[in-house]
Amino acid sequence: MDPQWIPARVGDALHSVDTPALILDLDRFEANLSRLMNAIQGRAVRVRPHAKSHKCVEIARRQIAAGAIGICCQKTSEAAPFLAAGISDVLITNEVIGQRKTERLAQLAASFPVSKVGVCVDNTRAVTDLARACERADSTLDVYIELDVGHDRAGVTAIEDVVVLGQEIGMHRKLSLRGLQAYFGNAQHRRTPSERRDAIATATSLARRAKAALVEAGLPCEIVTGAGTGTFLLEATSGVYNEIQPGSYAMMDVDYAKNETEPSWPAFDQSMFILTTVMSRRKDALSDRATLDAGLKSFSTDSGPAWPAFAGWQVRGVSDEHTVLERIGAGNELALGDKPLLIPGHIDPTVNLHDWIVAVRNDRVEAVWPIDARGAIF
Amino acid sequence: MDPQWIPARVGDALHSVDTPALILDLDRFEANLSRLMNAIQGRAVRVRPHAKSHKCVEIARRQIAAGAIGICCQKTSEAAPFLAAGISDVLITNEVIGQRKTERLAQLAASFPVSKVGVCVDNTRAVTDLARACERADSTLDVYIELDVGHDRAGVTAIEDVVVLGQEIGMHRKLSLRGLQAYFGNAQHRRTPSERRDAIATATSLARRAKAALVEAGLPCEIVTGAGTGTFLLEATSGVYNEIQPGSYAMMDVDYAKNETEPSWPAFDQSMFILTTVMSRRKDALSDRATLDAGLKSFSTDSGPAWPAFAGWQVRGVSDEHTVLERIGAGNELALGDKPLLIPGHIDPTVNLHDWIVAVRNDRVEAVWPIDARGAIF
Repeated sequence: MDPQWIPARVGDALHSVDTPALILDLDRFEANLSRLMNAIQGRAVRVRPHAKSHKCVEIARRQIAAGAIGICCQKTSEAAPFLAAGISDVLITNEVIGQRKTERLAQLAASFPVSKVGVCVDNTRAVTDLARACERADSTLDVYIELDVGHDRAGVTAIEDVVVLGQEIGMHRKLSLRGLQAYFGNAQHRRTPSERRDAIATATSLARRAKAALVEAGLPCEIVTGAGTGTFLLEATSGVYNEIQPGSYAMMDVDYAKNETEPSWPAFDQSMFILTTVMSRRKDALSDRATLDAGLKSFSTDSGPAWPAFAGWQVRGVSDEHTVLERIGAGNELALGDKPLLIPGHIDPTVNLHDWIVAVRNDRVEAVWPIDARGAIF
Repeated sequence: MDPQWIPARVGDALHSVDTPALILDLDRFEANLSRLMNAIQGRAVRVRPHAKSHKCVEIARRQIAAGAIGICCQKTSEAAPFLAAGISDVLITNEVIGQRKTERLAQLAASFPVSKVGVCVDNTRAVTDLARACERADSTLDVYIELDVGHDRAGVTAIEDVVVLGQEIGMHRKLSLRGLQAYFGNAQHRRTPSERRDAIATATSLARRAKAALVEAGLPCEIVTGAGTGTFLLEATSGVYNEIQPGSYAMMDVDYAKNETEPSWPAFDQSMFILTTVMSRRKDALSDRATLDAGLKSFSTDSGPAWPAFAGWQVRGVSDEHTVLERIGAGNELALGDKPLLIPGHIDPTVNLHDWIVAVRNDRVEAVWPIDARGAIF
């Protein structure tokens, strides 16, 4: 996008930032990074935050400075800007299928020979395709077998297939079997702690059996990786997982705020917001409404719309470039031109709609970061 | 985004296009453009397609070649690439509020002095802000008063306020009052023809009264503009509207396909698809599923998920980068690496997730067009 449309400059006051814009409250963001690291301190668990949530090199650098060992991504094109920025350990927590895609991945690994690049598989054909592409590009890949631990989307379901895949990986000199990808995605948003505990107990049991089968077959399984913001401490204390992949914890969203949490767990603060402008205002006998200049092209609604970060208003309707708020009680007045903040419903696809993160401290812009992997779907 | 990730080159076969990718079937697209122009032939109605649906200069050029008088947009930054490409009549069908935004709009108009640039207002303060910005930038703007004809989102509700606004606009030498913006957005998807007829009858009646009030006050009202793909022929035959703004008609989506249409209306074909890859496949006693490499970051789900363009399968789940299909009957076999097509649930926010439109004829890539205004939310 044309750089003339950058929403802010360093030093700007928050209220002068152009809208709609993603605002990152740096104090809250930094506290979230610390809370995660403190929660797992002393445990033999590595943190590999999921960069699909933020897609931003600067955030990844701060996560690594706080103690993360690298990052993970969902797509080859998403991994590229992080590798180009010098991040030395990037795992694609996803299958990469098809000749063109495997060749691009192998070439990417060849371009950054000092970095570790990992990928997941759940099919032997994919293993041979990756091996062939790596031979051609003269590169190596770390390979993780994706185990379906309940998410029901991709991954191997039968333990015997894990061993077959492990043996296939072991035959190729350019591929290194590192372990298991065992992510239980839809457990993250189960609302009660006991539902999440039950889910991760199942996942842990499956991962333990799969790891034992690999070891018994003489195959390596150094890393068992998975987990998200809703369950990470369960995996971290499982005795089986030794790497966790939380993403949303750094920014949070409305959907995660609906989870009941255990008192002993760290409470992550909402640090990412959408700054909007009141572009139309109506207050008469029939209605008390404020229409904002942000809609479906500024936040995703798959987990519900973005929601006011202040009392007294609710979302009445969302269209491409508008959100209509209506008053439901006491709270802020909203006048034409005011700039209220919304909380994203689901942080990952919301960030993907923006080109810039405006990083703010004490209502002053401290930095403007590009969302480097925005739109990186290949 | 890095140009290395362009999904196709001219001459590629459809099945070699990288995924997920937006595919435009050119035969169907061109037929849609003709159908719209044929439907209003002989009527004193101008066509100003809504470019918020496609955000693509090449599509706008083809719409104008087919007879459109220009385009409309929702944001100033969205208008910019179309003006820069030489499109000489661009209407922002939306309010532009705040000093920074009005200044940018006035400067944009100054940058393209031979083009018409229009904007909507529903508040007198916005009129004075625009006038001041245009004085400073030495530019002129066409101004339309937005009338709320039922969409209930922005716009003036009382006829007397239309006149007050018209008088305010008339006081400023850099602003030209052109007429009324009278779009009934949520009428587009009312499912039966009679519901849509009732809605547009109301809208027409309000627009007629507002126009009469302006004329009676000695103010101009040359253009009454509005309408979308679901209702455009109703406005076109209303005797009040003399400009229509359909956008989706050129591409279509699942949501529009659910409308019951009248036999006398043109039937627009689905011309835009999402090409995906089967990245994981499961077929056992418990399940028959294909997981595709496109999810919330490749299509919007606000009007339901993208849907298979073929029989025998339904969507079971969607996550950031995955769609899980499950078999529900006879139809295509789907093997690992196959590239099935999905139909977008809602075309506008889906296009906004992509950087490229791959234009195809007879399963061969004829062109690859940038989505110039992707992410243009300012």
